Amino acid sequence: MEKIDRKRLQSLLEQFSSFGATEKTGVTRLSLSKEDIDARGKFVEISEEIGLSVKVDDMGNLYATLPGKENLPPIAMGSHLDSVVKGGRFDGTLGVAAGLEVARTLVERNIELNHPITVINFTNEEGARFDPAMMSSGVLAGKFEKQDMLESSDTEGVKFGDALKQSGYAGDRENRLNEASAFLELHIEQGPVLEHIGREIGVVEGVMGMVCCEISLKGESNHAGTTPIPMRKDPMFASAKIIVDLQEELKKLPEDLVYTIGRINATPNVHTVIPNEVTFTLEARHKDMDVIRHVEGIIDNLPAFIDQCSLTSRKLWGRDTVIFEESVVNTVSEVAEGLGFNSHRMYSGAGHDAQFIASYIPTAMIFVPSAKGYSHREDEYTSFEECAKGADVLLNTVLKLDRESAPQKKKVLEENRV
Amino acid sequence: MEKIDRKRLQSLLEQFSSFGATEKTGVTRLSLSKEDIDARGKFVEISEEIGLSVKVDDMGNLYATLPGKENLPPIAMGSHLDSVVKGGRFDGTLGVAAGLEVARTLVERNIELNHPITVINFTNEEGARFDPAMMSSGVLAGKFEKQDMLESSDTEGVKFGDALKQSGYAGDRENRLNEASAFLELHIEQGPVLEHIGREIGVVEGVMGMVCCEISLKGESNHAGTTPIPMRKDPMFASAKIIVDLQEELKKLPEDLVYTIGRINATPNVHTVIPNEVTFTLEARHKDMDVIRHVEGIIDNLPAFIDQCSLTSRKLWGRDTVIFEESVVNTVSEVAEGLGFNSHRMYSGAGHDAQFIASYIPTAMIFVPSAKGYSHREDEYTSFEECAKGADVLLNTVLKLDRESAPQKKKVLEENRV
Repeated sequence: MEKIDRKRLQSLLEQFSSFGATEKTGVTRLSLSKEDIDARGKFVEISEEIGLSVKVDDMGNLYATLPGKENLPPIAMGSHLDSVVKGGRFDGTLGVAAGLEVARTLVERNIELNHPITVINFTNEEGARFDPAMMSSGVLAGKFEKQDMLESSDTEGVKFGDALKQSGYAGDRENRLNEASAFLELHIEQGPVLEHIGREIGVVEGVMGMVCCEISLKGESNHAGTTPIPMRKDPMFASAKIIVDLQEELKKLPEDLVYTIGRINATPNVHTVIPNEVTFTLEARHKDMDVIRHVEGIIDNLPAFIDQCSLTSRKLWGRDTVIFEESVVNTVSEVAEGLGFNSHRMYSGAGHDAQFIASYIPTAMIFVPSAKGYSHREDEYTSFEECAKGADVLLNTVLKLDRESAPQKKKVLEENRV
Repeated sequence: MEKIDRKRLQSLLEQFSSFGATEKTGVTRLSLSKEDIDARGKFVEISEEIGLSVKVDDMGNLYATLPGKENLPPIAMGSHLDSVVKGGRFDGTLGVAAGLEVARTLVERNIELNHPITVINFTNEEGARFDPAMMSSGVLAGKFEKQDMLESSDTEGVKFGDALKQSGYAGDRENRLNEASAFLELHIEQGPVLEHIGREIGVVEGVMGMVCCEISLKGESNHAGTTPIPMRKDPMFASAKIIVDLQEELKKLPEDLVYTIGRINATPNVHTVIPNEVTFTLEARHKDMDVIRHVEGIIDNLPAFIDQCSLTSRKLWGRDTVIFEESVVNTVSEVAEGLGFNSHRMYSGAGHDAQFIASYIPTAMIFVPSAKGYSHREDEYTSFEECAKGADVLLNTVLKLDRESAPQKKKVLEENRV
């Protein structure tokens, strides 16, 4: 088994984390911001230093390719360099930096592969500046319309299309990743499970399906001091009851279901006024879509009226579970075992570019632990050694996939692409 | 019994409601705004037309006085001309307009009283522009420090003291209402009770005591998709449980207790993030302070920890029940009966200038019904005939108080005044 050069991976991670570095070891590197453009410049510089040829597609996705001995679809790997505001150093960046280190290791050690190797930096994965998240992998997979994406505006009113042109990274559509023998994304877990159970590597079998609903209770605003309780239509107490009931019902479902009420708003939200409306979101994620459908059923069965208030719900969005390519997942698992790392098969609760790429390329992901599960915050942390172990798995998975018969590649359906 | 001229009262109410009129029959007449200054101009114009002498004190309170036959402390009455943003036409304005009509009726019908009659417009009752509410009656009663009030700023940074000077209504301290034989405030109920039970007049015995607390539950923010339920510290579900429990406990208290959770905030309030904190207010009002203390006890007895979250509470403010002068209240009641109006003895759940004035002047209030209990909204409504009935009670209460021995007047304690 080959091993990644620890010091050099650390150095590369540190170089990337200097672009948009915050005071508290985090980064703010919004997509196509000056900081992101600087990080892209570093990606191109390192790629050329290694001897990779760099191409850019019409969504600003960067591809750095090392040729193979045979004319085969590449083995691709990568992630994203953009971050949320005051995000962490590892989210996304690890997958890109490790990809470059895999390529550099191959070149340096004169390991010639049959397949070309392509390292990818996807544009606007976070969706923190331009909605939606995973925008550019979504366009590659035909999930989003490119034209809609170009029109997406940030809070300043700047359109994605204009920011892309301005950045100098508006490349050619013909450079898009149209086919590949496999796609691998190394990423921090962004959750506490690996740390909690003491495992070094997460072998990711897929991305959990989810549903997000908004539930509204409408009553009637009135003066808090002058309206007798029996004459009220108070959606606040009614909402609290509904939330408690929801929790009771959700607890009956499989224990690995996750569900969250992250947002709640009362109007007018004044201490001396009975609210006329309370609205909250409920989102739930699980690998088994039957469980998700059960959650939707619980929401659909909420009463239309409770305590003089009317209740409505609407689905804001949902996504089906994405199941990664079994053969690629198994290869990751075998490689981790071969390297002597403790691994854990799991589903990702968070979304990743890999979930869209998986729709047309045999895909798997590799997770490394996140301290306390923290992510999207400045104190997100994974030790450099843990990062290097993830990179070791990435490197040896590439080698193994190249040696063995490449996994069956899925054809992109032309009607599925924009 | 005397009766108010219905048409003239309606006309006066309509004239006042033109200052700051909104499209939907409401008014926006923030204290010392151009609209309020115009309404004050109308108050002075009408007063002088009637033959009242107008004085202004150092808080901008306006006093229009009709002399009496004897050198006695006046019988005072009034309310306020300021409104909230998009408030109603009747809140406050009714008490001022009716006061002026009472004086005009006396003059017109050559009814000479022993006591002088003083009609008051209190400055900044709503507190909608300058915090706190009932600012100027509060200064008169020694509840607020004048200097602090002058420093109170609106959202534009304009200080109350500067707005007062600018308005031309910064008068002399010596004009303050230092003593009076009685104070009467006619006001809309701002609640649904009178309409609901079909009564024309509310005989207000006092203002309910209240307490307002803020309750916070602290947990830990984490990714909604990647954090297993057993590893969460989720303050949202914990808050819902606490709110349901609070309601259960509060239901055991007397049924005329009113309690409201009007404000709730979760941080960061994002659907995909477990909140780290949920904060909400609980306010409760009742005429019996023992009941209010019971509510405080319920809050104090909330658990310090629930479902991995810590709970804290703090009292934002409270006020003791104000009990109006029994003899004045009884006079209002007898007058209403004498006029053949159905009346109902009640406590006010809302705050009024009368509650502060009651600390040194024998005071009572008269309520008229509010359609659907609506107030502080453009569709606040009381029919002109209902308003006139309230004004009839006001007029005849003044006459009766003047005829009978004046109620024992309380001396203002000098140390209680600023």
